[in-house]
Amino acid sequence: MPVNMISKFLEKAVPQLDVAPPVKIRASWRTGVLRNPNMEKLQKGYLFPEIGIKHEEHLKKYPDAKVISLGIGDTTEPIPNIVTSAMAKYALALSTPEGYQGYGPEKGHKVYSDMGIKESEVFISDGAQCDIARLQMLFGPNVTIAVQDPTFPGYVDNGVIMGQTGKVDDSGKYAGIEYMRCAPENAFFPDLSRVRQTDVIFFCSPNNPTGHVASREQLRQLVDFARRNGSIIVFDSAYSSYVSAGGGAPQSIYEIPGAREVAIEVSSFSKFAGFTGVRLGWAVVPDELLYSDGSPVARDFDRIVCTCFNGASSVAQAGGLACLSEEGHAAIQRVVGVYKENARVLVETFESLGKEVYGGADSPYVWVRFPGRRSWDVFAEILEKTHVITVPGSGFGPGGEGFIRVSAFNSRDRVIEACERLRSFLA
Amino acid sequence: MPVNMISKFLEKAVPQLDVAPPVKIRASWRTGVLRNPNMEKLQKGYLFPEIGIKHEEHLKKYPDAKVISLGIGDTTEPIPNIVTSAMAKYALALSTPEGYQGYGPEKGHKVYSDMGIKESEVFISDGAQCDIARLQMLFGPNVTIAVQDPTFPGYVDNGVIMGQTGKVDDSGKYAGIEYMRCAPENAFFPDLSRVRQTDVIFFCSPNNPTGHVASREQLRQLVDFARRNGSIIVFDSAYSSYVSAGGGAPQSIYEIPGAREVAIEVSSFSKFAGFTGVRLGWAVVPDELLYSDGSPVARDFDRIVCTCFNGASSVAQAGGLACLSEEGHAAIQRVVGVYKENARVLVETFESLGKEVYGGADSPYVWVRFPGRRSWDVFAEILEKTHVITVPGSGFGPGGEGFIRVSAFNSRDRVIEACERLRSFLA
Repeated sequence: MPVNMISKFLEKAVPQLDVAPPVKIRASWRTGVLRNPNMEKLQKGYLFPEIGIKHEEHLKKYPDAKVISLGIGDTTEPIPNIVTSAMAKYALALSTPEGYQGYGPEKGHKVYSDMGIKESEVFISDGAQCDIARLQMLFGPNVTIAVQDPTFPGYVDNGVIMGQTGKVDDSGKYAGIEYMRCAPENAFFPDLSRVRQTDVIFFCSPNNPTGHVASREQLRQLVDFARRNGSIIVFDSAYSSYVSAGGGAPQSIYEIPGAREVAIEVSSFSKFAGFTGVRLGWAVVPDELLYSDGSPVARDFDRIVCTCFNGASSVAQAGGLACLSEEGHAAIQRVVGVYKENARVLVETFESLGKEVYGGADSPYVWVRFPGRRSWDVFAEILEKTHVITVPGSGFGPGGEGFIRVSAFNSRDRVIEACERLRSFLA
Repeated sequence: MPVNMISKFLEKAVPQLDVAPPVKIRASWRTGVLRNPNMEKLQKGYLFPEIGIKHEEHLKKYPDAKVISLGIGDTTEPIPNIVTSAMAKYALALSTPEGYQGYGPEKGHKVYSDMGIKESEVFISDGAQCDIARLQMLFGPNVTIAVQDPTFPGYVDNGVIMGQTGKVDDSGKYAGIEYMRCAPENAFFPDLSRVRQTDVIFFCSPNNPTGHVASREQLRQLVDFARRNGSIIVFDSAYSSYVSAGGGAPQSIYEIPGAREVAIEVSSFSKFAGFTGVRLGWAVVPDELLYSDGSPVARDFDRIVCTCFNGASSVAQAGGLACLSEEGHAAIQRVVGVYKENARVLVETFESLGKEVYGGADSPYVWVRFPGRRSWDVFAEILEKTHVITVPGSGFGPGGEGFIRVSAFNSRDRVIEACERLRSFLA
């Protein structure tokens, strides 16, 4: 639908335009503007559009293939009606003088105490990926960063764009970035005694792509490590709704004592409520988080948010609010449950085939090892033989080489069909 | 409504969180992270939140005052029902398997010819301000920029954040930026023979804040200037819907021959359709626009959009599409007509008071001169005596000193009431 929508949109986007045809003054006109050297440093395309290109190429080669995507983490289940009704109601009210609303506030003001987080510390956004970009703008070119390896590629790519790194080496590592290896050998948690001090530590739990959920004890170690080193943690909890309640693993970094002074948290409604298209997320920047000069990080982040962004769509916010009502929350938890069951089916399938498989318990991602193989080769082979899209692990950093990520975001029927195909291929 | 919404939102944003209270390990804990020196360079707060603070302070001082805001350019008229119905319908469809849609495409693909703009050249966004931030990330720290003076502060502020400038001087100019003075003395169009060559030229028409609309001949000069200098123009047409059809002034830079090789255009539904809260805009980056190394600017911008952004809300896009239907377009043009009539009333009021007044004809902004006065003083005096919020001209650059910007975005009743108060104050 959106493709069509955008087509029509564009046909009329600049109505009544009296357009001049392109002028052929030179065959290849160039401006004198130098390309941003940081953009030059970026490796190839961004991972997920690259997967989309492979998907399209495959469809050209096999026009009749029933391709099943367990690739990019795009949600597929309908959004509960209580949530979409709230958006519809809000949208319709925009046609009334009482309901019309223009620019929203950049952040809230009301203090509440039971969570230890003040409303003024929470910045409503259009998603965690966008907040990561804004946080990297906030930190600027001079900071050093550490990332889990493998991890969501946005932390590194935005750091490269901001000029925080040198060039990439043959192994796929950018000079200046500290890669914290997370592998079965260390139970997917880095040996912090061997991690170099950096200004900022990006940490994602449940991890994308490995599906590993950091335990309370591990997050305590991480917070202690940041405190000892004077670092700032950016904790990405976009998948926290997949963490089983009562399992002991924190859903937020602020469950750890001392985190308020060292940690920012970003999160999202995308995978929580199927808002990948609706767009809604938030970032928490506690008042106690200070730069070395004593100035609050939140003050500068507020400036970034006001200058570079104008708030999340008010209609999306209306939907987000409905997700947090008792009924809405129960409804979206049922959807999360569908994906978690998909993940369980995927794990079971790979295990029954004797594969080494991780994640998928408190996470929508299943991480499968193919020892001695290159990720992109495995990706290509699975696609060629089974018409199933996955994501090559090396796309998430050199530490992902030899793995593929399989996403649980699809209908149960398609996941079962994909498992049957994988079974006959891998058996 | 949104403030409440966000209050409730935050109360439940991290459900079932087992939060530790802040740990008082040190009275003033600091991380070791150096504040981004580019953030330090930024002057005070961002203009529009600053106006909001003045507004709040005034309400504390005069709790019973009926404050009328002709300040930040926030739309007030309800959105036509055809548009909100389309959003509601789209939102409700997200609860059905057929209507559910996750991530949208970053851009369209269908080619259409009558405008000379290909679908692949148009990037749908969450608004022009956000695109300006992304364009500044694209250009990076090494480019030089020129801006109209006065102009929308986002171009400069985002340039400062990206490290394109030195420090600010006493006059409010950042070192390294070329300020193109636009004043009554030059009919609000810069003398290009005296403008220094820069990599990028930000140009806003109809201009915010002066309301000046560049003529076809002036835009021809601008495009020629950019071509001679090897510069890239970023043309901000966020207010193009206020330009009267048939008046001869272009609504798009692409009406000028040769613009495709040198110009990017950003635009928005905010002031066109009252989407300040809904959030929707677009940027056009033509294929012919190349860096000095011959690489296409669009390729790098696509990378930025994919890496730092995840697309505009799909619900907002559904609304945007309805705005472009014949019926929708007619309906939103009627709303634009309401604001244009407000602007006419404002111009007439100031003229009848013998003030020097500009803009307001093909623009929602009226630009009023107070010779020999400082803008912030005039702003404060008007607020104190009439309870009317305006915006001090110097907030848009040193060239705005001695002016105030008066916005036509309010109901007719309030605009008339504001004019009466201004009349008795200024008479």
